[in-house]
Amino acid sequence: MTRPFASGAMARANALVGRWMTEAGMAVRVDAAGNLVGHLPGTDPDAGTLLMGSHLDSVRDAGPFDGPLGVLVAVACVERLRAEDVGLPFALDVLGFSDEEGLRFGTAYLGSRAIAGTLDAALLEQADDDGVTIGEALAAFGAEPSAIAGASRRETRLLGYVEVHIEQGPVLEQRGAAVGVVSAIAGATRAEVRLTGRAGHAGTVPMDLRRDAACALAEFVLAVESTARAEPGLVATVGRLAALPGAPNVVPGAAVASLDVRHAEDHVRATAVGALRDRAGAIAAARGLRLTWEARLDQPAVAVDARLSDLLAGAVAELGLPEVRLSSGAGHDAVALADLTGVAMLFVRCAGGVSHHPDESVEAADVAVALDVIDRFVRRLAR
Amino acid sequence: MTRPFASGAMARANALVGRWMTEAGMAVRVDAAGNLVGHLPGTDPDAGTLLMGSHLDSVRDAGPFDGPLGVLVAVACVERLRAEDVGLPFALDVLGFSDEEGLRFGTAYLGSRAIAGTLDAALLEQADDDGVTIGEALAAFGAEPSAIAGASRRETRLLGYVEVHIEQGPVLEQRGAAVGVVSAIAGATRAEVRLTGRAGHAGTVPMDLRRDAACALAEFVLAVESTARAEPGLVATVGRLAALPGAPNVVPGAAVASLDVRHAEDHVRATAVGALRDRAGAIAAARGLRLTWEARLDQPAVAVDARLSDLLAGAVAELGLPEVRLSSGAGHDAVALADLTGVAMLFVRCAGGVSHHPDESVEAADVAVALDVIDRFVRRLAR
Repeated sequence: MTRPFASGAMARANALVGRWMTEAGMAVRVDAAGNLVGHLPGTDPDAGTLLMGSHLDSVRDAGPFDGPLGVLVAVACVERLRAEDVGLPFALDVLGFSDEEGLRFGTAYLGSRAIAGTLDAALLEQADDDGVTIGEALAAFGAEPSAIAGASRRETRLLGYVEVHIEQGPVLEQRGAAVGVVSAIAGATRAEVRLTGRAGHAGTVPMDLRRDAACALAEFVLAVESTARAEPGLVATVGRLAALPGAPNVVPGAAVASLDVRHAEDHVRATAVGALRDRAGAIAAARGLRLTWEARLDQPAVAVDARLSDLLAGAVAELGLPEVRLSSGAGHDAVALADLTGVAMLFVRCAGGVSHHPDESVEAADVAVALDVIDRFVRRLAR
Repeated sequence: MTRPFASGAMARANALVGRWMTEAGMAVRVDAAGNLVGHLPGTDPDAGTLLMGSHLDSVRDAGPFDGPLGVLVAVACVERLRAEDVGLPFALDVLGFSDEEGLRFGTAYLGSRAIAGTLDAALLEQADDDGVTIGEALAAFGAEPSAIAGASRRETRLLGYVEVHIEQGPVLEQRGAAVGVVSAIAGATRAEVRLTGRAGHAGTVPMDLRRDAACALAEFVLAVESTARAEPGLVATVGRLAALPGAPNVVPGAAVASLDVRHAEDHVRATAVGALRDRAGAIAAARGLRLTWEARLDQPAVAVDARLSDLLAGAVAELGLPEVRLSSGAGHDAVALADLTGVAMLFVRCAGGVSHHPDESVEAADVAVALDVIDRFVRRLAR
């Protein structure tokens, strides 16, 4: 269950899913970026093309659903249309993206950025841990890296991009809903926060003479938590922390933590990050410590297409299911596709919010709901 | 400035200090445990023996004063007595202990425990990182490990043990005192505290559905600090902490910390540790986490001899200096010697409380005060 970009495992995945696409009546090819593309023509050549899909690559020791679920629901939708002999006016391209996780080259969305026409060709020179470049990997994969600009769909008249994905979080389970419509893909700030005080002997320095960086960091961690709890939809995480030098009998002279803040609205996120930075400064000042705040990432939120999302929500309502809208805290291929066309996403409930782990699990009944929603969505779009 | 037990550096230190002892009129030998022993006979064979000294071994990249200061003040005291032609009724043994820091074998007080007669001979089989045992190291050092039981001074009629040592903390500097009399050597508890919650995606798990172990640990770190601040003389330290798995984009599913608690009175320490353990349990329960509390060390406090300590304090007062009594948060050879005889310690102010570092520093004037105090102390003891 490990499928890095342009690997043998990816070739086998493309071959298997490609066969299912062929059986569903699609014309199948692998593009210059290693993306699997299944094409179903429309009845009206002027009606444009709807893009659907998700990624077929994976993290290391992945679960079975993160990515493939979205590709297979799209293929199953085509199968059902064909079984019921339903012709759509627009063409339908089902995409199995070659790189969303960035496992091999540390750079996500290689496949979807190629489709969006936003992939910098210079990136092809980037090497993996074995010194193999992206270009070399693509060539070995049987793709044609020199033609990567041609993978762009900028010239195609597009109706949008719709992606089904497991939620990778616990919200739908908590609300008792099989599926939910994504309201936005959250923006993210990452920073490294360092507090510097004065190390000392744990036995000989009295409490009132300490400048303990770990205690200051503890105050900051709790400030991060309370700030996020006070703002609906805001999540903030200290995932990594350390005290230095890190010996049981030494008062920490420095402490360092990662900070990750996400929200669907950029101004809410910016306000929270500013408040946390002020708070860290105040904590440091009160204790005679020095604060270093190093920005690592500032990624804006991605808006979804209102019409496509409303069509998804309408399909959910038609099925008599509760309408749940939720923002996505994780990134998806839809982030890259949003540079090309309007995007919409449908999340499927997963057990315990577990993902990026072999225990990742979804109920077959929930997948059936997702398929029904997508089926109704494309028929509504055709009306 | 690195002198491990029974090393070439130790042999050179013993030779140099031994020469100074000889010049001061002492008979010099190295005992079976590698301790340097300088002997000055008393005028009255029935008056017993006073032990003085400290250790000559060091940590890696040590400062110049941690250990040697106490040996050299004792040698200087003998020099001065001789220069002034003062005869003491009791004998005076100046000890340069071979192992207090435990740098080479990870087991402290090898030298002083041999003198105290509390060294288990089985310990001689313990090996260093190169596979050399303590016994082999002693033999290579020119000592006679088979005779180690003979290093014990249990059969000697002893008046006590007095040790001068740098404070290794900031208290004397803070109080503007050159020296201070140690009131007790603090006992210590060490434990490893682990909190287990549930890992999750930093972007997809809402704040109210998290069981974040780092936030719980942060609460505990602040509880440790406030508990220690509320109790005079108590010090408590979280020197090492980590969140697991430790990735910026993962809500920590577990967090681990070291705890070090010290106080001169064992019941105060035990009460504080009990309260902190209860507090950790309450924090874990409130957040739906699991607490694991692993005891690592429970070392009782060591009382000093009241009469010897009062004699030291009287000598300080005679010099017109403020009487400062302070507990020692660090361990010293006096801990091991307390199993043999009454002990007393005099601390010397050090710059910024810095120790175990080349920057370790004391003022010559403060050392002169310590010498005056020890000189008066031995003369008072002789009266």
